[in-house]
Amino acid sequence: MHTNSDIPTGQFVAERLIRFSHCDPAGIVFFPRYFELLNGVVEDWWAHIGKPWTETVSERRMGTPTAQIDTTFVAPSHFGETVRFELSVSHVGNSSLHLTHRIVGPDGGERVRFEQRMVATSLDTHRPMPWPEDIRQAIHGFKEKS
Amino acid sequence: MHTNSDIPTGQFVAERLIRFSHCDPAGIVFFPRYFELLNGVVEDWWAHIGKPWTETVSERRMGTPTAQIDTTFVAPSHFGETVRFELSVSHVGNSSLHLTHRIVGPDGGERVRFEQRMVATSLDTHRPMPWPEDIRQAIHGFKEKS
Amino acid sequence: MHTNSDIPTGQFVAERLIRFSHCDPAGIVFFPRYFELLNGVVEDWWAHIGKPWTETVSERRMGTPTAQIDTTFVAPSHFGETVRFELSVSHVGNSSLHLTHRIVGPDGGERVRFEQRMVATSLDTHRPMPWPEDIRQAIHGFKEKS
Amino acid sequence: MHTNSDIPTGQFVAERLIRFSHCDPAGIVFFPRYFELLNGVVEDWWAHIGKPWTETVSERRMGTPTAQIDTTFVAPSHFGETVRFELSVSHVGNSSLHLTHRIVGPDGGERVRFEQRMVATSLDTHRPMPWPEDIRQAIHGFKEKS
Repeated sequence: MHTNSDIPTGQFVAERLIRFSHCDPAGIVFFPRYFELLNGVVEDWWAHIGKPWTETVSERRMGTPTAQIDTTFVAPSHFGETVRFELSVSHVGNSSLHLTHRIVGPDGGERVRFEQRMVATSLDTHRPMPWPEDIRQAIHGFKEKS
Repeated sequence: MHTNSDIPTGQFVAERLIRFSHCDPAGIVFFPRYFELLNGVVEDWWAHIGKPWTETVSERRMGTPTAQIDTTFVAPSHFGETVRFELSVSHVGNSSLHLTHRIVGPDGGERVRFEQRMVATSLDTHRPMPWPEDIRQAIHGFKEKS
Repeated sequence: MHTNSDIPTGQFVAERLIRFSHCDPAGIVFFPRYFELLNGVVEDWWAHIGKPWTETVSERRMGTPTAQIDTTFVAPSHFGETVRFELSVSHVGNSSLHLTHRIVGPDGGERVRFEQRMVATSLDTHRPMPWPEDIRQAIHGFKEKS
Repeated sequence: MHTNSDIPTGQFVAERLIRFSHCDPAGIVFFPRYFELLNGVVEDWWAHIGKPWTETVSERRMGTPTAQIDTTFVAPSHFGETVRFELSVSHVGNSSLHLTHRIVGPDGGERVRFEQRMVATSLDTHRPMPWPEDIRQAIHGFKEKS
């Protein structure tokens, strides 16, 4: 469901159909559903850079919880539309990762903007930890060359 | 499920049980679920000030969509905990409403903070509209006396 | 949110408000949401009989997954209604538990019926296990005397 | 995300990734999530036969609510698996439609079975209505030739 042809360097793009299940009595996306959709896009991005959560979370016991997410809802999305999520890496810290997201409608209009900060965390101690070197490299590899 | 005894002026408090359905494979609240819980608290607050969505949305055709929500996740919440949502009104504009929320754990520790901006909108034109006078008064009544 | 006064022997009753988040573009409950609501009622029932999932699942490592659920949707539920869930135990097997549920609207009309079969399962072996004696007694105690 | 090559006559197949958001503290799919996934597959099937809900629900004011769904959970699905939904039409009545579904794991093992009965309903009168002839033909066309 995601494609990466014809997109700018350092951007991950995923398309999502706005389903009946995402919509509220006004026929538009109920805003909490956007966060579930966004989380799925982030999940796909980690797989795209070769570090799927099935490996990092389940095997390496490293979580990447969201510590901050600032969200601007610009315009509503409607049932039946296919929208485009655009993800880019804005900053990589010692144990943090800043992602910038946009959702764009089929008309090219901006729907939602997110600024998300995730933190590498040990699932055993529940404390922040530095990004393991292979993961840091995978993130930088995406940022620079994808 | 909400109580308003022994709480500061201008604050609405609602308790919520962290259910199995809210939790992820790490046994803590999956962050998108917080927004659904928050929306339910806001829904209860509108009813508390005498302007339930069943009246404003369904009968008066006025929506109150969220235009901006900035969220800080301070500490995780666990399955089986009863957490406390605290809502206060930080600003009322011509057609906007700024709410400040906190979620506090049973240990008194802060879990999540939200800064939310809602906008009064006509469900017919989908454009912002000024708060109707009775609703403005209900909001101010809460802000000052509750 | 649940009350147990004035209800028949062997019945657990829980009220739920139909929230904005439960409703679809037709303004009625989106049917998958009923299963999440039902699961919360079952969660409350286990706590009511003194065997909360926080104890059985988290500490004793016993799950109670649903093996079968047959559901009849009789009439829709609407945004803003308070509906009543009625749970009763229809059969207790060696490692199974049959629950019968009804959801009733504020008008007394039946909305949904469920026949649910749960199975006691070890979370370590993922195999069925007999009900521990204290849990069996708690279920029978509810069935006969509550 | 769905493919229809190499599948039996009269069967619609859709693959779905089991995401983090679908899983519970035991790391397996939380059963209510299956119904949301199933509803999305049914939504895709209606589009596949040329009668998308965006047309039938939004324009023609015809709903297809589920009146009955009997569900057997055979084996759990785990985070990260890609499962296969198989849909077939078992019966078409005057205003009813019986669908049989299976979810199959990557190992070929059966995970869930559903028997679903949907009913054509006028969204204006909320009463059952006969299938419009073009929709009846689209369903039969799928049943016999797809």
